[in-house]
Amino acid sequence: MTVNNGNRAKTAEATPQSVLELAEHVGGRVIGDEKLVITGAATLADAGAGDISFLANPKYEKEMRTSAASAIVVSDKVTLEDDGRTYIICKDPYYAFMQIVVKLHGHREHQPIGVSVRASVAETATIEENVDIHDFVVISDKAQIGAGTVIYPNCVVGPGSRIGRNCVLYPNVTVYDGCVIGDRVTIHSGTVVGQDGFGYATHEGVHYKIPQIGGVVIEDDVEIGACCAIDRGTLGDTVIGRGSKFSNLIAIGHNTKIGPYSLLVAQVGIAGSVTVGHHCVFGGQAGVVGHITIGDGVQVGAQAGVINEIPAGSSVVGSPAMPLTQAKRSLTIMKDLPEFRRKLRDLEKSLRNLLKGP
Amino acid sequence: MTVNNGNRAKTAEATPQSVLELAEHVGGRVIGDEKLVITGAATLADAGAGDISFLANPKYEKEMRTSAASAIVVSDKVTLEDDGRTYIICKDPYYAFMQIVVKLHGHREHQPIGVSVRASVAETATIEENVDIHDFVVISDKAQIGAGTVIYPNCVVGPGSRIGRNCVLYPNVTVYDGCVIGDRVTIHSGTVVGQDGFGYATHEGVHYKIPQIGGVVIEDDVEIGACCAIDRGTLGDTVIGRGSKFSNLIAIGHNTKIGPYSLLVAQVGIAGSVTVGHHCVFGGQAGVVGHITIGDGVQVGAQAGVINEIPAGSSVVGSPAMPLTQAKRSLTIMKDLPEFRRKLRDLEKSLRNLLKGP
Amino acid sequence: MTVNNGNRAKTAEATPQSVLELAEHVGGRVIGDEKLVITGAATLADAGAGDISFLANPKYEKEMRTSAASAIVVSDKVTLEDDGRTYIICKDPYYAFMQIVVKLHGHREHQPIGVSVRASVAETATIEENVDIHDFVVISDKAQIGAGTVIYPNCVVGPGSRIGRNCVLYPNVTVYDGCVIGDRVTIHSGTVVGQDGFGYATHEGVHYKIPQIGGVVIEDDVEIGACCAIDRGTLGDTVIGRGSKFSNLIAIGHNTKIGPYSLLVAQVGIAGSVTVGHHCVFGGQAGVVGHITIGDGVQVGAQAGVINEIPAGSSVVGSPAMPLTQAKRSLTIMKDLPEFRRKLRDLEKSLRNLLKGP
Repeated sequence: MTVNNGNRAKTAEATPQSVLELAEHVGGRVIGDEKLVITGAATLADAGAGDISFLANPKYEKEMRTSAASAIVVSDKVTLEDDGRTYIICKDPYYAFMQIVVKLHGHREHQPIGVSVRASVAETATIEENVDIHDFVVISDKAQIGAGTVIYPNCVVGPGSRIGRNCVLYPNVTVYDGCVIGDRVTIHSGTVVGQDGFGYATHEGVHYKIPQIGGVVIEDDVEIGACCAIDRGTLGDTVIGRGSKFSNLIAIGHNTKIGPYSLLVAQVGIAGSVTVGHHCVFGGQAGVVGHITIGDGVQVGAQAGVINEIPAGSSVVGSPAMPLTQAKRSLTIMKDLPEFRRKLRDLEKSLRNLLKGP
Repeated sequence: MTVNNGNRAKTAEATPQSVLELAEHVGGRVIGDEKLVITGAATLADAGAGDISFLANPKYEKEMRTSAASAIVVSDKVTLEDDGRTYIICKDPYYAFMQIVVKLHGHREHQPIGVSVRASVAETATIEENVDIHDFVVISDKAQIGAGTVIYPNCVVGPGSRIGRNCVLYPNVTVYDGCVIGDRVTIHSGTVVGQDGFGYATHEGVHYKIPQIGGVVIEDDVEIGACCAIDRGTLGDTVIGRGSKFSNLIAIGHNTKIGPYSLLVAQVGIAGSVTVGHHCVFGGQAGVVGHITIGDGVQVGAQAGVINEIPAGSSVVGSPAMPLTQAKRSLTIMKDLPEFRRKLRDLEKSLRNLLKGP
Repeated sequence: MTVNNGNRAKTAEATPQSVLELAEHVGGRVIGDEKLVITGAATLADAGAGDISFLANPKYEKEMRTSAASAIVVSDKVTLEDDGRTYIICKDPYYAFMQIVVKLHGHREHQPIGVSVRASVAETATIEENVDIHDFVVISDKAQIGAGTVIYPNCVVGPGSRIGRNCVLYPNVTVYDGCVIGDRVTIHSGTVVGQDGFGYATHEGVHYKIPQIGGVVIEDDVEIGACCAIDRGTLGDTVIGRGSKFSNLIAIGHNTKIGPYSLLVAQVGIAGSVTVGHHCVFGGQAGVVGHITIGDGVQVGAQAGVINEIPAGSSVVGSPAMPLTQAKRSLTIMKDLPEFRRKLRDLEKSLRNLLKGP
């Protein structure tokens, strides 16, 4: 087998539906051919005949004009040309498109397999109904797995840990002992929940380990990407708040609390004992020092380094992080520096001439 | 099950002890009720009745005054009020508190299980006494596992690798072939030891792999966090020195030597062929380029980018990293720039007026 | 067992060969003793009697003079002293040395074991000839494994995924469903291919998951380090181009295309929908925002933060990233700032004196 760009991975198949069905599903209004059958969803650039696409960001409007999509979801603010194309008009086109993708393709289906004979489930563990436990999974003593949860191969759930209902743990996830995971939580492969926090007391040059006796609580509807590492608390818990979503390779320190509905992009690192409010957004590779509070709705730029409290509603960028407005001013003045130099030289020259006299 | 902040993960239970017992254990002096029974350890903010806490950093002194802790470990430099509370006075309160947490809660206990029949242990492997090898662990040909070591589920120890005594490998750890791990080493889940270093010779646009024939040596008393990746040497070994401690998601390049008793916070990346001295500290997300030497006791700030040798004892911050003092000066001058601009304008104006004459 | 720096990991043994044999193998010319037997390869600093080393970077020329290596591969531009040492002269010494290391030590050998009875291979999977599938590996429904491929313990290959020929998946690798991996691809431990991309539509404060229905295509001759996370596409595929090489802990966002023959050093993060040209190089911890294009042959410095398109052939550094030349100018002017301040003061003083009059 030789793979090249022409060799595409198999995409989940869609259930064809008419534009009208889709429009009704999202509460939208059709302009054009209601009976047009949609067979797939795609971006404006990739869409072809039969595909539906969307325009959420006005900067892609030009791309919309040239897209080969048969139908496009747009907001009522877009001026539509009489181009013979079919449109679904609705208030929040991205949200509507998401609903359409779900209707066309559905979410990943999990083959019901029950508890594999090749899994290792402790006698003292509690497994509710309709649980799928794949090969080589280990469910340790007194662990609990809620109804409808799927645990893919090679995951390990430590002693006394509780996984809620309708969760999905993808292959090779590790949950340490004494952790609590809510309902409808998804954890992607390679992620580790509940390893010991980084706590040592240094005495005469030797680092002595402080037992990490807290746990981790992951609330309902959280999704954690691949290869993340969430420390257990030293004393008390590390908490990932309800509805928060993590991308990949994220590090969370011990006793940190991430507010509900926050978004953490890949490679973010948040040190220990940090309190993050709700609906915060952290750009990729952003970092936060320990023992500070970040207010609700804060936006932290990619690669920013947060070293101080951030009041609710603010946006910060840079390392060390500063408010966005200050950063812009700083950038402007940096650009002016060559001019400063020139002016200094002119002034010196003028002054020299002046002192020399006529 | 619905999880929320009120739903705490189960914390390891403590063995209740009197303040006097604890004070004697740490060589401290009691002020207050020697017979008070302590049932748990907690931070100043979280502590309640029955809990012992500590004050190591004067900046939390105010928090101490309002803490609900029954007893607090403090240094003899703290002025104590006659508040009816019980104190343990000692030189190094953080170290003493660590000892108290260990005495109250102990370290994590590992259930002795012997060698699981569901593990795969090569006939040519050497397993010493009192070793626990959990389900779905693979111990490859000619590997050696020292007495008292615990290897949790789904770990893989490659051909010819030696793990010392009283080590703990948490679930899903991978040790490649030909690596050497000392005694009392702890490796957390998802970590990989001994993958090939990043070595290619590029010839006419194609990258040819250089066999990575060295190994990894992890010395005694090292602890490695979750999801770290430690390259094997190209020629000769990568070495993690005795007593060093790593947090999570750390990358170490081929042939790098980390001095004993160094601390690496989460997401630090150290490229290949770097020599790091003893007792160095790397803040989170700090990076170090290849082929340089970092002296003993160096402190590298979070997100710093080290591109040159760092002499022993220095502190560096920023990207590219500079000495702390220089960085502060740089920051100060950045703040002065708007004033520079104003002065330049004033000077130009004065000079213009002067030239115009009276 | 006590491990210390003297306790080296076992290095793969070499097959002794004469300098003449090695020189002929790389098309080089011998100066000195053609019959000298070489028993190992090492760096200039580590080499001893019997070892061959190399000089590719003139900055190590001094180190060459004092090296204990018996033979050294050098380019014809190096002035050799009559020091009794043996040299192999060739055009590209690093490439030649790579070939010599391969000839002496070979690449890692994989013990042929066939399909382990402790592996779990779906009946609907297709396994070609000469495949090694180790213990506790899971090959899911309709997955395909090409001839000559080795899959080490505890790897999971998801439903419908295709792995090409002569690939190596080291322990604990996860490949999700519907991914395509080419021939001669190597994936190191802990890496995850095909987890869901970070895609949510936020509606009234709640983040709704967008099904990630694309896949991942990894083309031929790619090598991926340990603990990397490569998102599947949302709609359409994420593609890692032929001959590209990744170090460890790298995050690739959904629908990103990495051009052929690119090099990504550890902890690089590339967001979604990025197009990277061929022969690009990303330094450690560099980051790239989503939805941009990076031209062919671009060099991105370590820790750089790329937020705009980068034209082919350019080098950028810093966060936010700027062209190398601009960064150098910026650095120079930063160094001049204290002088600016001094000059401003002098000017002010001169002007004051002037205004005061004689």
